[in-house]
Amino acid sequence: MLEAVDQIRDLVGDEAVSVDASDLEEHGYSDWSTSNTDVRPVAIVRPASTEHVSAIAAICTRLKVPMVPYGAGSSVEGNFSSPFSGICIDLSAMDKIIAIHPEDMDVVVQPGVNWIRLNDDIKDLGLFLPLDPSPTALIGGMVATNCSGTNATRYGTMKDYVVNLTVVLADGSVIKTRNRPRKTSAGYNLNGLFAGSEGTLGIITEITLKLATVPTNVSVATATFPTIREAADAASALIRKGVPVAALELMDHVQMKIVNRNGGAGGRTWQELPTLFIKFAGTKNAIADNILSTRQVAEAYHCASFESADTTEQMDALWSARKQALWASLAIRPEGTRIWSTDVAVPLSRMGELIEISQQRAARLGLFTSILGHVGDGNFHQMIMYDPRVAEEQRRVEDCVAAMVERALEMEGTVSGEHGIGMGKKHCLAKELDPSTLGTMKALKSALDPYWLLNPGKVFDE
Amino acid sequence: MLEAVDQIRDLVGDEAVSVDASDLEEHGYSDWSTSNTDVRPVAIVRPASTEHVSAIAAICTRLKVPMVPYGAGSSVEGNFSSPFSGICIDLSAMDKIIAIHPEDMDVVVQPGVNWIRLNDDIKDLGLFLPLDPSPTALIGGMVATNCSGTNATRYGTMKDYVVNLTVVLADGSVIKTRNRPRKTSAGYNLNGLFAGSEGTLGIITEITLKLATVPTNVSVATATFPTIREAADAASALIRKGVPVAALELMDHVQMKIVNRNGGAGGRTWQELPTLFIKFAGTKNAIADNILSTRQVAEAYHCASFESADTTEQMDALWSARKQALWASLAIRPEGTRIWSTDVAVPLSRMGELIEISQQRAARLGLFTSILGHVGDGNFHQMIMYDPRVAEEQRRVEDCVAAMVERALEMEGTVSGEHGIGMGKKHCLAKELDPSTLGTMKALKSALDPYWLLNPGKVFDE
Repeated sequence: MLEAVDQIRDLVGDEAVSVDASDLEEHGYSDWSTSNTDVRPVAIVRPASTEHVSAIAAICTRLKVPMVPYGAGSSVEGNFSSPFSGICIDLSAMDKIIAIHPEDMDVVVQPGVNWIRLNDDIKDLGLFLPLDPSPTALIGGMVATNCSGTNATRYGTMKDYVVNLTVVLADGSVIKTRNRPRKTSAGYNLNGLFAGSEGTLGIITEITLKLATVPTNVSVATATFPTIREAADAASALIRKGVPVAALELMDHVQMKIVNRNGGAGGRTWQELPTLFIKFAGTKNAIADNILSTRQVAEAYHCASFESADTTEQMDALWSARKQALWASLAIRPEGTRIWSTDVAVPLSRMGELIEISQQRAARLGLFTSILGHVGDGNFHQMIMYDPRVAEEQRRVEDCVAAMVERALEMEGTVSGEHGIGMGKKHCLAKELDPSTLGTMKALKSALDPYWLLNPGKVFDE
Repeated sequence: MLEAVDQIRDLVGDEAVSVDASDLEEHGYSDWSTSNTDVRPVAIVRPASTEHVSAIAAICTRLKVPMVPYGAGSSVEGNFSSPFSGICIDLSAMDKIIAIHPEDMDVVVQPGVNWIRLNDDIKDLGLFLPLDPSPTALIGGMVATNCSGTNATRYGTMKDYVVNLTVVLADGSVIKTRNRPRKTSAGYNLNGLFAGSEGTLGIITEITLKLATVPTNVSVATATFPTIREAADAASALIRKGVPVAALELMDHVQMKIVNRNGGAGGRTWQELPTLFIKFAGTKNAIADNILSTRQVAEAYHCASFESADTTEQMDALWSARKQALWASLAIRPEGTRIWSTDVAVPLSRMGELIEISQQRAARLGLFTSILGHVGDGNFHQMIMYDPRVAEEQRRVEDCVAAMVERALEMEGTVSGEHGIGMGKKHCLAKELDPSTLGTMKALKSALDPYWLLNPGKVFDE
């Protein structure tokens, strides 16, 4: 490995290679992640171009050294850990917006571009990338994880926005998956394969992204419900009815309590009831119609209250509780405790039941837990607070998460709606898919990376 | 190969194996296709189950016999030809709807289910599969080709509706790509890889499909323009502006003339001008707003006329010319002539230019040609009438198509927006992608089908 570091240093220059202990630590461990390892990379390399990445990969393959692509470090399943050490390839310095094609509604970027910065840069064009993962996330990692967030119900996930990718393969060869059409049936869909492959099939060095038009009008409504089950079922019913929501989020009564305990949001305190947060987009008339339909569905599920915004200020105020949910949870947690954020998705009709069961189970285990859901997709997170220094507490959290995943699988769901597999959910993926399916994925991996050098130990093992 | 036929006959029974000459001819040649071969399969097998297909594949791999999956036979690029002979596996008898989950908005079907029949069966549930390829198309082939049609602008292509696939691999092993979540980030996206792989990676034997809700209200508008360029540019502008159209189709003046010559459509004759056909869906107010925005855009591009429907009858009448376009073309063509339907897609800003150039080039070559476009996606077809018995005419058509593909590639477009590659466009795909990208696709192919027995001679050669 050190030989590889030397060769890479010769190639990209001293200043782009770091063996600083704190740098290695920061790239090898994450407080956000539920899965970490004691092993660290031997060096962090910060390439400046596709050519750099290609040369680095060629060296690593020649010397059989693991390569771990790194973006913002915001993933939560140990997706960028270095269990076999190796070279961490930090792409955050490749942060140029290469081309903006407003008339084609696409943009060409390097992997280190942050999505919020991108959206700021293009907002005057009336265009945006409609994903919203962690505010720190970089485009490369967003593609590698096939991220989503609150807008996925309306706009789809990251894979739906990939027009083409430039990818460096394990041996250093460079491919460009496509030209720049918005639609194609020409050859295999490599975009869809690399998106969500978590850096195990190649290193993404350039991305052309489809953009959406910023809606002329948006609005927000909130509805509170007596029970979490009614709130979740109302969400499923809204989707089933085809009410065109732009986002559809659920927070349970604990989440609402947390927001209040953290000083409220939007200049008010909130009812501590399960609450749906709903966004609308379209013409003013369309939004008014959709809010009316939404209210009718909410009432059919016995909503306790229903509010909708008339002004931008009201809209921001109504959405603020949803926006602050994670930060409020982090702010109120006692020193030394951590939050385990689970991530499953199930068919729409089963979601209410699974949320209810998961909440009850956590309560029985005496865990401090809350629910936050992208419920338009049948996807939700259970956030469980625990003290990792207390072995018994850690064990109870693990049991709780394992039971939730099991139940999601019984309901024909998936063990990860948007966070990916990383190291933390390999054993879950092995339960979700039968051996022949997993074998097919491994055959694809072996075809593109025969020595399993790209992000080894992630998604599945050899 | 005959040994394989015998073994398969023992397995699935005499009645499921045909060596009838007309059956072989029908499965090996198509008048619809621009690419055919003189070779025919040695037998047609009609399996009844995934188990049958699995056993057939195992026999074919053991004896190294090519397998050609077959659905409705409606593809147009020789996608189901048998250039290396082999066994044609006709899946049209596997035509059961296995399960309908209205609350989850999905359906489980066998590959032989016709999409129109499916939509008829589920329409009372207020759900539909929003693709519309050839009326004869079967779901298996639709997935294999990643088909689209007029609804793709609003709803996406076939790959966006695949929840999971049961696939028989070359060696007979059976995989199921996923459970039944609407969203997932768990493991590689095999759905997206098999969709559009044209039967070269596996044989699809069961499909779970996401469904969309039938809109409560729909309407239609048409706009005519002085020039094809203005019509196409107006279409691009509509998309760029974010007007939420449900479909956006272009017919040139020749297409309109053909409809009139065939007796009109919707009980009227039509202006023989380039015409946009636009569908809207949503609440009545939303539709009215969207029609107004559309009219404003059309007027900015100097539309000659703009009509919108107030009633269902008017709507059907306005859409009828679009609906009858292909059939009118077929009806008026002289005995013995054929229609070559090209298929390219380019970035939105280039579409008007490419359509204009393509029309002029065909005119210079003295070809009878018309344009039909799914212009919301930058995708369009040029339909060229020719007499295949006249070598010079065939050559001129080929030149015209080749020039159009070249120009689409110069504009960073794709050689196939929705028809796939088959045999007919292999040489085009080789121009679209660089050798390393094509090499990556071939490596994936070799990983799953090491002897290249699945639909050989399609998409690319070994």
